[in-house]
Amino acid sequence: MIKTLEWKNNKLIIVDQTLLPGTIQYIVCNDYRRVNLAIKRLEVRGAPALGAAGAYALVLGLQELINSNKTIAANTLKNKLKLICNEIISTRPTAVNLSWAVELMQQTFIQELSFSNDFPKILAILEKKANSIFAQDIKQNKKIGRNGAAVIPPNAVILTHCNAGALATCGFGTALGVIRQAHFEQKVKMVYVDETRPLLQGARLTAWELQEEKIPVTLITDSMASWVMKTKKVDCIITGADRIAANGDTANKVGTYGLAVLAKQHGIPFYIAAPLNTFDFKLTTGTKIPIEERAPEEITFIADKQVAPLNIKVFNPAFDITPSKYITGIITEHGIIQKPYKQNIKALQTLLKEDV
Amino acid sequence: MIKTLEWKNNKLIIVDQTLLPGTIQYIVCNDYRRVNLAIKRLEVRGAPALGAAGAYALVLGLQELINSNKTIAANTLKNKLKLICNEIISTRPTAVNLSWAVELMQQTFIQELSFSNDFPKILAILEKKANSIFAQDIKQNKKIGRNGAAVIPPNAVILTHCNAGALATCGFGTALGVIRQAHFEQKVKMVYVDETRPLLQGARLTAWELQEEKIPVTLITDSMASWVMKTKKVDCIITGADRIAANGDTANKVGTYGLAVLAKQHGIPFYIAAPLNTFDFKLTTGTKIPIEERAPEEITFIADKQVAPLNIKVFNPAFDITPSKYITGIITEHGIIQKPYKQNIKALQTLLKEDV
Repeated sequence: MIKTLEWKNNKLIIVDQTLLPGTIQYIVCNDYRRVNLAIKRLEVRGAPALGAAGAYALVLGLQELINSNKTIAANTLKNKLKLICNEIISTRPTAVNLSWAVELMQQTFIQELSFSNDFPKILAILEKKANSIFAQDIKQNKKIGRNGAAVIPPNAVILTHCNAGALATCGFGTALGVIRQAHFEQKVKMVYVDETRPLLQGARLTAWELQEEKIPVTLITDSMASWVMKTKKVDCIITGADRIAANGDTANKVGTYGLAVLAKQHGIPFYIAAPLNTFDFKLTTGTKIPIEERAPEEITFIADKQVAPLNIKVFNPAFDITPSKYITGIITEHGIIQKPYKQNIKALQTLLKEDV
Repeated sequence: MIKTLEWKNNKLIIVDQTLLPGTIQYIVCNDYRRVNLAIKRLEVRGAPALGAAGAYALVLGLQELINSNKTIAANTLKNKLKLICNEIISTRPTAVNLSWAVELMQQTFIQELSFSNDFPKILAILEKKANSIFAQDIKQNKKIGRNGAAVIPPNAVILTHCNAGALATCGFGTALGVIRQAHFEQKVKMVYVDETRPLLQGARLTAWELQEEKIPVTLITDSMASWVMKTKKVDCIITGADRIAANGDTANKVGTYGLAVLAKQHGIPFYIAAPLNTFDFKLTTGTKIPIEERAPEEITFIADKQVAPLNIKVFNPAFDITPSKYITGIITEHGIIQKPYKQNIKALQTLLKEDV
């Protein structure tokens, strides 16, 4: 299985997901700015993967600050690192895992700074922390996989959108983790994959991951999902998430909201699979989740070819928000959260800090 | 305005819609086989345009039969023409306008043959008949436009899918005819256009037609339509149709069914705009409409670039069927048909033969 991210010799190695599956090419980042660029360009994407990438970006930033000025004052270091953290967090506004990881790293830094001014030692501690966020993500995904597979019926026909696979995480995947585990338990008959325009993460990444693992897969365009629901006896729909509010409202790749509404109309269970660090407990409802709008060219050009008239106006939200009333369950590493979401999410909130 | 089809000097000139809007290139057909190829390749597409193209293909076929054997027996001519008709009709199975026009032409041929064996004269009559199908389509579209514009509120935000414009017809358009007329009446605030994967008729054709006429237009991916319904105060959705059953169930470009279900959930009126020759009165329900499945490469390649893994399994239905319960009204040249569809469609059936 391809490694989404690898921390090696003080560098972050990223597989360039914009070139997959045709080309496997790695980006070696020894500068946090290059990680930021990779995040903005979607060379690395997927909420959980962004968390780990952000944590390593902070390590690279701290490394640079310490190496460029061995006698830097603790307070200056703290302030400069804060600016770097803000820069990392601002690369993509919707997925909360990025800010969750960067803030966790920053808290650890501040805590360690209160004990000692041995910067190389603090750097080593932060590197270990980033490694732990990385390792923990894979562990959580495997738990999500096991928890989710329990609701997959035998001979299941499953529909998924975008990529919530190994490539969206540090390994194994969230929604695809559930599918992977269900396949391991020999329960998967067919997975329908929405190609996921504009950037085709379903066609390029999810279809490829499933094919590589010999899981039965059929690719469709996003517009065919409703017809598949109507004619192909779909047992459930599973997607990942980029941010989940305290009431269960979920931001995920644009198109998820429509799928959830259609699932309800077809009597098909609709699941979100995500680790607890995808929850934003501060937000009471999904309406407060910022939705990133991306460049028109993502829609008007495909593979460098113009497919729409010049200067056409475009609306290109990268995400949409699914009200929790359409969600059958949120599959986490701590089990499946169901209605009433507000109460049940609140009960899990305290567990988050114990996780890493 | 670009001419979708033009009959000139015994040849059918077709604008190659697969190259639009980047390249305007015409295909000159002096052989019915070339028209068939153009239909299969979607160089000409759109239910009403296919009707006229099929009628002209028959004229080209008859021309060839008569010219290649001046002493052909009437019965041989009849049988050979029937084979050609079957060939034309079989190019695309879903849109009923094609078989409607070809069968109408064939009936005229048989009728004329019963009066006379003056083949050149019969050819001239059939050419006139094809011209009349062509001219009638434009007339009908303008009536559809006026009938439909009556239900468009002032300052309207409209969503459409695929292309039911001038390019899908002999001119003016069905769904876009309504939008064109409403714009003329200064009622259109914004038209959201689904790009319409896999072949991007929305991005390439509809967005272009609207832009050319300075009608406010915003391009979105198909997956964004539900989010636009939720957040952009959409007043109505209008699409064309490829075949309408006697109970109002409607086959149209894949994705239409999902839009109709989502429209109902958002309380948005959902209209079909189509001439009466799009109705297949023989079919009691939409479940009997044949759905064309097209090549996987339409999804796995975009602009000659592979965007999905090699050998991935693909489901590529070109159309889906919207049950009439989701349809607010069917806008025809004879007014807007509403529930109960079965009775109201039956009442219009007799009008069809009077139309051409």
